[in-house]
Amino acid sequence: MMQQPPLLCFYVYIVCLFSVGHIHSQYVFKTEYFEAKLDHFTFLSNATFKLRYLVNDSYWSPDTNAPIFFYVGNEGDITLFVQNTGFIWEIAPEFNALVVFAEHRFYGESMPFGNKSYDKGNIGYLSSSQAMMDYIDLIAELRHNHNKQFPVVLFGGSYGGMLAAWMRMTYPASVTGAIASSAPIWQFPEMTHCNSYYRVITSAFSRVSPNCSDNIRKSWKTIDDITKTDEGKSWLSSTWNLCEPLQSSENVTTLRDYLDNVYANLGMANYPYPTDFLAPLPGHPVKAVCKHLLEKDLEGKKLLSALFQGVSVYFNYTGNAKCLNYASAYQSSLGDSGWNYQACTEMVMPICTDGKHDMYEVSEWNFTEYAEDCYEKYGVKPDPSHVRNLYGGKHISTATNIIFSNGELDPWSCCGVLHNMSDTAQAIVLADAAHHLDLRASNPADPESVVEARKYYRTVIQQWISQ
Amino acid sequence: MMQQPPLLCFYVYIVCLFSVGHIHSQYVFKTEYFEAKLDHFTFLSNATFKLRYLVNDSYWSPDTNAPIFFYVGNEGDITLFVQNTGFIWEIAPEFNALVVFAEHRFYGESMPFGNKSYDKGNIGYLSSSQAMMDYIDLIAELRHNHNKQFPVVLFGGSYGGMLAAWMRMTYPASVTGAIASSAPIWQFPEMTHCNSYYRVITSAFSRVSPNCSDNIRKSWKTIDDITKTDEGKSWLSSTWNLCEPLQSSENVTTLRDYLDNVYANLGMANYPYPTDFLAPLPGHPVKAVCKHLLEKDLEGKKLLSALFQGVSVYFNYTGNAKCLNYASAYQSSLGDSGWNYQACTEMVMPICTDGKHDMYEVSEWNFTEYAEDCYEKYGVKPDPSHVRNLYGGKHISTATNIIFSNGELDPWSCCGVLHNMSDTAQAIVLADAAHHLDLRASNPADPESVVEARKYYRTVIQQWISQ
Repeated sequence: MMQQPPLLCFYVYIVCLFSVGHIHSQYVFKTEYFEAKLDHFTFLSNATFKLRYLVNDSYWSPDTNAPIFFYVGNEGDITLFVQNTGFIWEIAPEFNALVVFAEHRFYGESMPFGNKSYDKGNIGYLSSSQAMMDYIDLIAELRHNHNKQFPVVLFGGSYGGMLAAWMRMTYPASVTGAIASSAPIWQFPEMTHCNSYYRVITSAFSRVSPNCSDNIRKSWKTIDDITKTDEGKSWLSSTWNLCEPLQSSENVTTLRDYLDNVYANLGMANYPYPTDFLAPLPGHPVKAVCKHLLEKDLEGKKLLSALFQGVSVYFNYTGNAKCLNYASAYQSSLGDSGWNYQACTEMVMPICTDGKHDMYEVSEWNFTEYAEDCYEKYGVKPDPSHVRNLYGGKHISTATNIIFSNGELDPWSCCGVLHNMSDTAQAIVLADAAHHLDLRASNPADPESVVEARKYYRTVIQQWISQ
Repeated sequence: MMQQPPLLCFYVYIVCLFSVGHIHSQYVFKTEYFEAKLDHFTFLSNATFKLRYLVNDSYWSPDTNAPIFFYVGNEGDITLFVQNTGFIWEIAPEFNALVVFAEHRFYGESMPFGNKSYDKGNIGYLSSSQAMMDYIDLIAELRHNHNKQFPVVLFGGSYGGMLAAWMRMTYPASVTGAIASSAPIWQFPEMTHCNSYYRVITSAFSRVSPNCSDNIRKSWKTIDDITKTDEGKSWLSSTWNLCEPLQSSENVTTLRDYLDNVYANLGMANYPYPTDFLAPLPGHPVKAVCKHLLEKDLEGKKLLSALFQGVSVYFNYTGNAKCLNYASAYQSSLGDSGWNYQACTEMVMPICTDGKHDMYEVSEWNFTEYAEDCYEKYGVKPDPSHVRNLYGGKHISTATNIIFSNGELDPWSCCGVLHNMSDTAQAIVLADAAHHLDLRASNPADPESVVEARKYYRTVIQQWISQ
């Protein structure tokens, strides 16, 4: 079973966020640093570190009740996000808003211990609670500098959307409202069934054609069967034009993991217009892949040959790839060790497949094994109930002033808030939208749902600010 | 100026809580221990410690929607509080409630590092945030043991009331509602004027007679003047029957501090019936003290002689005291070093006097000096904005399901919530009531305000539970 480890699943979206679509390098900002406390909740040390944030005050009218638009940095370099969250930039002028993009501790330049930040004894300070208080203290300073209780609207996508929602719920005095896009705050034990994530990925393929997902489901065993022999390995290496020929069962496992990542990435980046995601992709990329997998009775080498045509959409849309490098399905410049650590401590997101409701093989969620692996890697024990106890799990009916938006095509919609939690904590499902498309800059090819949603956000933000 | 240091001011109420009134030793409970995480917000260590809690399940019907009544332990040994919060015990049977009294970390038996808990490097884990998460995790376990989302009603007085209110605001999924009695959540910088606390103490005396507070105001300088000479020291030592004769200016300072504490303790324990507070007190003790200070033109030795009659009400109501021990105005068995540390980190509560609106001499709030003193003692820097950033300061209009009750006579009413914050976050001012009288067992001499308040709490709790 080629199921990728859950921590990688989640990590993928970083790449998605900053790589899909056009880079709007016209956005102008200053780089500032905030002296953040290393530890907000104990008093063992007075240490601080420099938290980076990017700011544009050119639209701002601090003499009025103008808001602070605060992008809640997630697990990556903030300079990537600043260029890829065009919605904030588009609406800041009309709101006379101060634009702030704050970087998450232990990512980008915001390394509390420099290049030793990921050392044992240091990385323990990487947690959602600490990161949120970095932001709360920064907001307090921004307000304090002008001695004014400016409205603060948070924007966040994916993990950043989770943080945005949790910040409004936990620190409502500091946060006026939050747009939490594609935020799977319920992808935790006892909140969502572990097979939901892969079911949604599968549905993106089966809605093109059930034959497509059926063929992918069959392909796992077919790959195993064919690569049992050296001749088979050789055939597949050659037919798929692999950069590194298959020589061992480990190679085969790596190839399966690669495919797993490819399908997930396609699901998230299933945008209606061509984008530049890792490898460039056409619009509706899942459809483009499935085009090669529509035949009902594909089997054996014929199936794998067809699959290669599909996968080529992902790795060779331009036609310029020399070979298929199955070592990685996405670029690795983002320091995924940060997220892997978070997944091993508090971000425990169960993943499983049953081979029936999804296009994968059977794989159960084995927390014990997961925990042992984490302990071996980092000396930490993941706590499956921590996030629930901290942030309330599914009992969040007291939440107010939050938009939970979910792309209908986005795998992470599996585990977000899909129903209103209160009058002002509202859920929105965006038809024909993938992973937090709504936070990106406008594009002529945007689906109607996203166009309308952005209009609605403007109205809601205006209401929040006027309160 | 004999103003006591702020940290001691606050500490006083512990004593008040467990010492005033009758001890209802009929309350029966089991002692249990919960394996609490040492650090809820970083992952540097997997260490845990035993948090003590006391529990009575004899009234409980876990098969129904019966609530958990959870006493939020404050800065003292929990066994003292369990016997002195009679209101919970009185209403538990009618609600079929589980009664839980949880001990605050670093107090009583809940010492994470045993007798080394207060050592540098250990005591840093003493914080409100950590204590609250201990309670949240304990609540989660109590619910999880029965696999049921029982309603949880918090009860807390003074600092415990602050924690109760903050817990409902921060963790609403874990907490259904909170009775926060005499909780000065606004006794922090930029929230309440630093002279409020002493103004309220003064008003308790001046409402008996302005001459009473005027005489006390005059007495500080009179003490200084008379004790300038050895003859004067000797006269005062003899007239006041001091256990330790005044021999130095340090002794005089200690005596002044003692008086400062006495007035504060009288203000808090200004109950309408005789109570057993440190030294036993009559009902309406402030009135009893002022009886000796009603004359308008008291001066010099005549003033101090009269003052001694007043102070005798505090230290010698029984007539059995051999001499006045001015070394301490309250028993010292409670480990005030815990609270002193908290006051030096996050519980920064400004105190000042102006000698006009209060019966003290002029003393300004000097944060720099305060911070230096803390740094010298503990190597920590108090953060005046920490509590505001964590818990929202005065911007808590999103709070729900909280009763903020304040005794009109209680000095700490200076800095509590006196107006409704929302439809269900309500403020109550209890006429003729001192420090969290409402949480104590019923007494025939209770003022009508408290009798009515307790009835109202029953109704409100029922509403919370039914939601």
